[in-house]
Amino acid sequence: MSKSIAILGASGYTGAELVRLISTHPDMTLTALSAERKAGLAMGDVFPHLRHLDLPKLVKIDEIDFSDVDLCFCALPHKTSQDVIAKLPESLKIVDLSADFRLRDAAAYEAWYGNPHTALAQQQEAVYGLTEFYREQIKTARLVAGTGCNAATGQYALRPLIEAGAIDLDEIIIDLKTGVSGAGRALKENLLHAEASEGAAPYAVGGTHRHLGEFDQEFSAIAGREVKVQFTPHLLPMNRGIVATIYVKGDPQIVHDTLSTAYEDEPFLEMLPFGSVPSTHHTRGSNFAHLGVTADRIDGRAIIVCALDNLTKGSSGQALQNANLMLGLEETAGLMLAPLFP
Amino acid sequence: MSKSIAILGASGYTGAELVRLISTHPDMTLTALSAERKAGLAMGDVFPHLRHLDLPKLVKIDEIDFSDVDLCFCALPHKTSQDVIAKLPESLKIVDLSADFRLRDAAAYEAWYGNPHTALAQQQEAVYGLTEFYREQIKTARLVAGTGCNAATGQYALRPLIEAGAIDLDEIIIDLKTGVSGAGRALKENLLHAEASEGAAPYAVGGTHRHLGEFDQEFSAIAGREVKVQFTPHLLPMNRGIVATIYVKGDPQIVHDTLSTAYEDEPFLEMLPFGSVPSTHHTRGSNFAHLGVTADRIDGRAIIVCALDNLTKGSSGQALQNANLMLGLEETAGLMLAPLFP
Amino acid sequence: MSKSIAILGASGYTGAELVRLISTHPDMTLTALSAERKAGLAMGDVFPHLRHLDLPKLVKIDEIDFSDVDLCFCALPHKTSQDVIAKLPESLKIVDLSADFRLRDAAAYEAWYGNPHTALAQQQEAVYGLTEFYREQIKTARLVAGTGCNAATGQYALRPLIEAGAIDLDEIIIDLKTGVSGAGRALKENLLHAEASEGAAPYAVGGTHRHLGEFDQEFSAIAGREVKVQFTPHLLPMNRGIVATIYVKGDPQIVHDTLSTAYEDEPFLEMLPFGSVPSTHHTRGSNFAHLGVTADRIDGRAIIVCALDNLTKGSSGQALQNANLMLGLEETAGLMLAPLFP
Amino acid sequence: MSKSIAILGASGYTGAELVRLISTHPDMTLTALSAERKAGLAMGDVFPHLRHLDLPKLVKIDEIDFSDVDLCFCALPHKTSQDVIAKLPESLKIVDLSADFRLRDAAAYEAWYGNPHTALAQQQEAVYGLTEFYREQIKTARLVAGTGCNAATGQYALRPLIEAGAIDLDEIIIDLKTGVSGAGRALKENLLHAEASEGAAPYAVGGTHRHLGEFDQEFSAIAGREVKVQFTPHLLPMNRGIVATIYVKGDPQIVHDTLSTAYEDEPFLEMLPFGSVPSTHHTRGSNFAHLGVTADRIDGRAIIVCALDNLTKGSSGQALQNANLMLGLEETAGLMLAPLFP
Repeated sequence: MSKSIAILGASGYTGAELVRLISTHPDMTLTALSAERKAGLAMGDVFPHLRHLDLPKLVKIDEIDFSDVDLCFCALPHKTSQDVIAKLPESLKIVDLSADFRLRDAAAYEAWYGNPHTALAQQQEAVYGLTEFYREQIKTARLVAGTGCNAATGQYALRPLIEAGAIDLDEIIIDLKTGVSGAGRALKENLLHAEASEGAAPYAVGGTHRHLGEFDQEFSAIAGREVKVQFTPHLLPMNRGIVATIYVKGDPQIVHDTLSTAYEDEPFLEMLPFGSVPSTHHTRGSNFAHLGVTADRIDGRAIIVCALDNLTKGSSGQALQNANLMLGLEETAGLMLAPLFP
Repeated sequence: MSKSIAILGASGYTGAELVRLISTHPDMTLTALSAERKAGLAMGDVFPHLRHLDLPKLVKIDEIDFSDVDLCFCALPHKTSQDVIAKLPESLKIVDLSADFRLRDAAAYEAWYGNPHTALAQQQEAVYGLTEFYREQIKTARLVAGTGCNAATGQYALRPLIEAGAIDLDEIIIDLKTGVSGAGRALKENLLHAEASEGAAPYAVGGTHRHLGEFDQEFSAIAGREVKVQFTPHLLPMNRGIVATIYVKGDPQIVHDTLSTAYEDEPFLEMLPFGSVPSTHHTRGSNFAHLGVTADRIDGRAIIVCALDNLTKGSSGQALQNANLMLGLEETAGLMLAPLFP
Repeated sequence: MSKSIAILGASGYTGAELVRLISTHPDMTLTALSAERKAGLAMGDVFPHLRHLDLPKLVKIDEIDFSDVDLCFCALPHKTSQDVIAKLPESLKIVDLSADFRLRDAAAYEAWYGNPHTALAQQQEAVYGLTEFYREQIKTARLVAGTGCNAATGQYALRPLIEAGAIDLDEIIIDLKTGVSGAGRALKENLLHAEASEGAAPYAVGGTHRHLGEFDQEFSAIAGREVKVQFTPHLLPMNRGIVATIYVKGDPQIVHDTLSTAYEDEPFLEMLPFGSVPSTHHTRGSNFAHLGVTADRIDGRAIIVCALDNLTKGSSGQALQNANLMLGLEETAGLMLAPLFP
Repeated sequence: MSKSIAILGASGYTGAELVRLISTHPDMTLTALSAERKAGLAMGDVFPHLRHLDLPKLVKIDEIDFSDVDLCFCALPHKTSQDVIAKLPESLKIVDLSADFRLRDAAAYEAWYGNPHTALAQQQEAVYGLTEFYREQIKTARLVAGTGCNAATGQYALRPLIEAGAIDLDEIIIDLKTGVSGAGRALKENLLHAEASEGAAPYAVGGTHRHLGEFDQEFSAIAGREVKVQFTPHLLPMNRGIVATIYVKGDPQIVHDTLSTAYEDEPFLEMLPFGSVPSTHHTRGSNFAHLGVTADRIDGRAIIVCALDNLTKGSSGQALQNANLMLGLEETAGLMLAPLFP
């Protein structure tokens, strides 16, 4: 029987991406969509690309009867998310796409996000949603915290290497490039077409991007010691896509072998042949991530490149993959759509 | 049992788009892919976005055993297509995506395309592939000729109006804007990113675009008299999408009503409320076309706008829709993917 | 001696474009720049591309001493502009880039803009700023009203034809495509990169765009009778550029000859050979407009295409051209920069 | 008296950019333009954005009389350039924009470019064209070798630091992003709009890009020991612009101070305040480069960001700056155009 699904915050890009993916999912039915300021509108008015679908009207969260809902995606802004989730029925399965439950340490959360956490009980039970590495916990979790899109990209490239001790932990540089949709539908000057197109620049330079909180938490946990990476995101004139170019010290062939072995059976992580380089072009709109490893001309240095779609594998696709596991469905259900190219 | 499908010319954009769509089709299996110059390569080498798929290697057409193939898509250049199709087994069902079998009149073909037609027998049996208007013939056809992408867009806006006598037949202007993928993967200077992006211009101005051959044929047949429209395509800095803005003389409300009635039960043609305007943004990557009608401030004049994705509804999606009908499958199978936005 | 120039509203795109152009003007010096909300900031903070220039700080209008200013550009929003200009010293020469003084008829202004005009005295003295057609009046004007960018584009294509009686006045269709900068730096959802890029759509369909007020006024005045055109603008995924494709009934060769003769001595209006078509690509960042005429396959119909940069020839470049005339300088001073391509 | 200037290879992007810049240069006149395959055409046919200019027709190099030419820009492909330059009159001043005379060591040239150098005499006399660092030699040079656009960007960020011993020479990583025009007007599949737009990827990963030859030569010469950097270029969906994000070990404040001091009097190198980050958006179409320095959260590490326009400061603008020096003109003549934004 089809699972009943609610999406809170359906008027943002990750909400719309969830609707897109679920619209052809064989075992899910959308039964509630919320959007506080756009309550009363049809989804097709807010996102005309979804107008062919027979969807519930947008409502306020308070209007939703969760008693028949099997799983709820929370695509709300951080801070709002913790307030809302704290009040949801305890029996309800939840996949949260905000930053609110990614960090297990309340002090770390406050340090990175600037406000004290107000849903500590839920924070403690939340499972970090990087599917390939938390699969078993996710299957039995009530609340899964979707990862940051940049954080997912960097971790796919690095986790198995840190685990295997294949690289120098003090010399990791993640130079990452992302499309504009990662910033959401917010009305900001630098996201205007006239300002964002035909140019590129780094931002949050020097170690100030919040996704570093996830890198610090996860990499340190794996290594059993503090690991601090350098991380510079760049805003690129494209809508979707993240590509991370990662500089490490270690044997390039071992780096490639380690990742290849780790991801051999993963349905969505595609390892390229040694020396090949992925592009965001080839992951657009899909749940696939492509990874490549190249040797530098300087001995003992390798470059790892990971590309994925920030809205799909980096966010809503990941969320759906987790939801599939939580609901006992096929992990890949609704997620095998090939990328859109060109 | 799954149908066995071949694609000839799989290294172009329409070929790749067919593979993308068929990769999640419930009742089709790709058993042969041809690409003369790239024979021997894996599809994933030519189109890395398809690298996760388990696909047959690219071969030359001569290497394909068609005996077990249920249906063959021909995504070859025009002229080549007629030569190849003339030699295919007579029992083989074929959907041709080239221009070779769109025009029923051999002289008209030669006039528009500059070379005499060399597969006259096949030309005679071919059914014009505008699904919504040739559905019954397509179901029993052996050879279906996919329409021009611009030709499809204009016809969706105009056929029911000509049929109903709702507009002045001598005063139809189709001002159409298309993305670059309509020109295919050809290496032409004006298709380079540096030349095509950040600017726009009309081309084939004054009635020289070949898709006019289709407009002339179809509109004249419906009207029972010669109908000649004005048609100006424009090349826009985007990859996918066609939007046609069409100026007609007739009662705007009747125009809207006529189209609404005609498309009431169509699964892929979405009629917007009177006065609303569609955008290519909301059809990208999908088989949906959106149509809107607005009254001009001058009495008795209406503007019809039709938007669709040239590679999907304008070409490969249309081809798959036709193939579904020819094979007795559900017409919408594999085609309900929602558009990708943003 | 260098002329002292003020710009009111320097934090918008047209203001910044004026600064760009004036920065290499041989006979002008910027002595005051206003921006109400950004007063106190350096221009280089608001527009880092101008950071190499030695410019006055942004101030509020009230802080400017106009006694030594030779000419003031007003790049304020419409409505605000009339309030500000009404209070400026009567001796001050002004080029207004807003819509406030384009329409000579106060009722027409109110009909198109929705508010009564509050600076009727200035409205009466204002000269319409389409340089090539109001050159003599502009030379002696105190207040010149810059035209709408779309209005300029359409008029370059049509004025000489209406004047010469070369086309049917009741059958003029202007299908126009514009880049996003025409909408200014306003924070609107549809102007976000994620919403505007990779797609296109018409807007203000059916005769509701305010620039129609200018077409009506100017064309009717030339014709000596009411002329109403059809006009549909489209928003394109590019920053700069307007291309208008205009459908008229008349002899194509006469249309071409009429325009060629009219613009023979114009420094910025480039007439292409008969049958050639311009592109916005080739006018970007410059004060040049390119015009082409093509015969339609239907006898007695012609297509005129006009391309220009909305921020330069369509707005700030035009304003500077007018200012040159008003100050007795060389008309082309500071404006001969070649377009930027690619 | 105006200097007589020839451009060889005027049909490529750098040739066209030279024409654009020289068209408003106060002391230069274009007297010859060559383009072998397009000889006989007007420049305005090949580059319609230059159609308003009164330019000499394109001719073959053999047709040019160099006796009255003061300086010749060579914008030919590498390898062709050395063959042509070897045959030019010995008295002719030359600025070469190809890679042929950048490397002083013939073996290094052959190693990076794959063919033996055939103009060794000219190679010996050539001065490396990074103006700010070779200014005095350039003033008296006969032949100046324009730098690689990526090589210029990296050197602006690093030369003063290496000179000052401010950073660890064994730990320099240059992660660079470039627009498509850097690859020229070549017809390559990956440069098509449909392939290049809406996505990004690294290329020449691992230390294989030819501009490394310049980094090796220059940095080693300054340091007095071998210096090898890591360098990864990325192709971005934009036409113009390079931004290099450079990771170094050294005191961030000293890094910023060293660069600030070095560039204090440079007319085209703009140093941003400590912690600020430049963008290619703000250098487009200009000869300015913007530089910023930020401290990383890890002590002793700094990130330097340098942005410039690859076709202007990275190539044709640099060439003109050098030509000004060689001809005894004002160094900044014709080069003070402000960037185009948006």
